[in-house]
Amino acid sequence: MERPLIFITNDDSYWAKGIQLLIKLMSNIGDVVVVAPLTQQSGKSHAITTIRPLRLKKMEEREGYIGYACNGTPVDCVKMAFSIVFKDRKPDLVVAGINHGSNASINTIYSGTMAAVFEGCAEGIPSIGFSVDNHDVEADFSHCSSFIDKISKDVLEKGLDEHICLNVNFPQDEIKGVKVCHQAKAYWNERFLERKDPMGFSYYWLTGIYNCRDENNRADHIAMKDGYCAITPMHVDLTAYKVIEDYKIRFE
Amino acid sequence: MERPLIFITNDDSYWAKGIQLLIKLMSNIGDVVVVAPLTQQSGKSHAITTIRPLRLKKMEEREGYIGYACNGTPVDCVKMAFSIVFKDRKPDLVVAGINHGSNASINTIYSGTMAAVFEGCAEGIPSIGFSVDNHDVEADFSHCSSFIDKISKDVLEKGLDEHICLNVNFPQDEIKGVKVCHQAKAYWNERFLERKDPMGFSYYWLTGIYNCRDENNRADHIAMKDGYCAITPMHVDLTAYKVIEDYKIRFE
Repeated sequence: MERPLIFITNDDSYWAKGIQLLIKLMSNIGDVVVVAPLTQQSGKSHAITTIRPLRLKKMEEREGYIGYACNGTPVDCVKMAFSIVFKDRKPDLVVAGINHGSNASINTIYSGTMAAVFEGCAEGIPSIGFSVDNHDVEADFSHCSSFIDKISKDVLEKGLDEHICLNVNFPQDEIKGVKVCHQAKAYWNERFLERKDPMGFSYYWLTGIYNCRDENNRADHIAMKDGYCAITPMHVDLTAYKVIEDYKIRFE
Repeated sequence: MERPLIFITNDDSYWAKGIQLLIKLMSNIGDVVVVAPLTQQSGKSHAITTIRPLRLKKMEEREGYIGYACNGTPVDCVKMAFSIVFKDRKPDLVVAGINHGSNASINTIYSGTMAAVFEGCAEGIPSIGFSVDNHDVEADFSHCSSFIDKISKDVLEKGLDEHICLNVNFPQDEIKGVKVCHQAKAYWNERFLERKDPMGFSYYWLTGIYNCRDENNRADHIAMKDGYCAITPMHVDLTAYKVIEDYKIRFE
């Protein structure tokens, strides 16, 4: 039987420790193609590159593995992969990560990793994003390996519902089990750090404080902080259906 | 009575024709503060700038108007506005646009304009994005003026439900009326245009063909193409609630 074809990308770059573990894990399951950003692309969300051309560089090719780096965003990587690399055979699974840092709650919308997952989903391929609540670039994510293996094999075997993808977030340390969650209600309270350049002009660094306003233990951020692997099924429909009937009366 | 304070941003830049009309319209309603990108930021989605510092430059100040330009993304503009400009008094309304090009359907997730609207919404301020189905930088959007005026006044007066914002998309020409819609199911079929540089190496330009897979006349893209002003109420919760119970059985 033909080995499954697995496409891997991320936003932390081709060189990140997280993607290296994901490549190792997926290579146990199938053949792997990577198209990942050349440079760090955290917080790039669904950004696409239209005002400058893109490059795609083959980094490595060996039995069961081809790796490319792209000088664009995570979404550019997925679009290039499907348009240029996967001409003859589409992948059976798209996985992104393992992200250095949580993509639970509001972080989903800023995340380049999750944007790549939504792109895979839009291509009609079962797609999963894996993230760990640990930003350290040297972090060891091996406590997640057996969960990633199991979830990936399950999705490869049974697929996912149409237009649905998974946002999987792991705690920093020991994992108590799995909880299927909803996106936690949360926001960032921004603080810009002001500094002066050598000419005396102000410049600002974006920083922020995370605020969770959800208390439900089925909210992804809460479940993750409680030590669970939080699986949130997602889609790209942002419609707030609950107000539609009221707003018809109000605006039409 | 104090005039309302209205915050305006966009993704087409401080210099775009669309934002100039929006400034004119909002100045009839209240005092206006603009923080808009210095350069074109279309397709930047929720991207935030963290690997380089940001600058904020006051461009113009006159009675009832202050305009700033920022060297970041639309989301950076909103975060800087709320963190640096609106220290004493928060705005009463956030409006973004008028975008040159539709932000209906899947375009919502790539749009810098709509990302700015979601940021305003996360700050707890009623927020609206206005877009016209016309990419021409010289396009005349004056056929939308009376609708923008009416919707903005309505939202200023009555507010919006908590965590809900509006994505308003206008047709290119005559407007038949208003329809409250859902986000149309659609996707982009990417085509990368390959060219050779003077050294003979390949580079690629991102292009694509839009595919709508929705036929409902309440889908925003369809309503807009039918000549209606399509108002889609939105929120930033990407959870696919309909599969949660099934996935608990499957993954837990």
